[in-house]
Amino acid sequence: MTTTTGRVRMSPESRREQLLDLGARLLSTRTLDEISIELLAEEAGISRGLLYHYFGSLQEFHVAVVRQAVQDIFAITAPRDIDDPVEQLAVSLGAYADYVSANYTGYVSLIRAAAGGNEELREIYLEARRALTGRIFEIAGPDDLAALGFVDSAATRLLVDGWAAMVENVVVAWVADPHGLSRDDLLRRLALALPAVVVD
Amino acid sequence: MTTTTGRVRMSPESRREQLLDLGARLLSTRTLDEISIELLAEEAGISRGLLYHYFGSLQEFHVAVVRQAVQDIFAITAPRDIDDPVEQLAVSLGAYADYVSANYTGYVSLIRAAAGGNEELREIYLEARRALTGRIFEIAGPDDLAALGFVDSAATRLLVDGWAAMVENVVVAWVADPHGLSRDDLLRRLALALPAVVVD
Repeated sequence: MTTTTGRVRMSPESRREQLLDLGARLLSTRTLDEISIELLAEEAGISRGLLYHYFGSLQEFHVAVVRQAVQDIFAITAPRDIDDPVEQLAVSLGAYADYVSANYTGYVSLIRAAAGGNEELREIYLEARRALTGRIFEIAGPDDLAALGFVDSAATRLLVDGWAAMVENVVVAWVADPHGLSRDDLLRRLALALPAVVVD
Repeated sequence: MTTTTGRVRMSPESRREQLLDLGARLLSTRTLDEISIELLAEEAGISRGLLYHYFGSLQEFHVAVVRQAVQDIFAITAPRDIDDPVEQLAVSLGAYADYVSANYTGYVSLIRAAAGGNEELREIYLEARRALTGRIFEIAGPDDLAALGFVDSAATRLLVDGWAAMVENVVVAWVADPHGLSRDDLLRRLALALPAVVVD
């Protein structure tokens, strides 16, 4: 169904999703701060009123876009049917590296905002990292973990979170400049580092 | 020599150092943002005029205090006469962990400011990390590195920088909550992680 102006009439939910998709697209090549009311008006004819109607404020739109981005990362790094756990991990890390490559500017601005002063983004970011690293424990299950020499303890989770910080640091730096490291070598190194850090 | 008010007359250099020492002391229990002109006046009777005379602005004073802090970290983590390289590394990591323990609030505010938007602090921070990790290569020398299975390459430096990010993440989280990990276990894990990440 179309209106007289030719626009498709959308449900509020679809409209909101469309705005989030636009935010995600803009964030691939722009920083969060660059996603302004003016840019949204220019790029997609979106008015301040429309944005505020769906998200309340520009800041809340930014938060929703970041939530969308971390959900995307969680989805694309989901484990496949791969038996070898290190190989599985390398494949997930590859999907993450591809995401960072394709969304470098926005992703770096997101992690800087989270690491800096923005407490709301920081909480979303830390929750996302806990979900990503938590998956390592959930998928394998206690028996498989034990077979690998993992003990699921608070100490292990502390170290796995540190490993995730290393992964982020290395992948972001590698995307900016590969430092002579092939993609395969990068992923293998990072995947092998996890048991090295965690297992006695 | 004293003035009539009983104050010790100090050289400009000593006065500057005294102000920096005060900044370092305040930073141990306060964030960078909390070190305001008002606090400096309250805690040490330092006027805006005096501070501006020696540092130009509060922001430049903050930068000078951070430079002092990273120099302190570099000094206290200096290698001792320990033959075993992993043991040497664990001792340096212990000195770093002790520094973070003693200066937790200020140190966390410093790394957040550097990770967030402050470009000047970010540059000081990254330079400090390069100096700290660079020492690993300088001390050992190419022959010792080769014996350990290290190759001093751009790729290795990328991975060592990632290891440093993990160390920072784990130590800061461990100081806030040890997660059941003893100090010795923490240091041993982090030290052993370096060759695991870097060596084929």
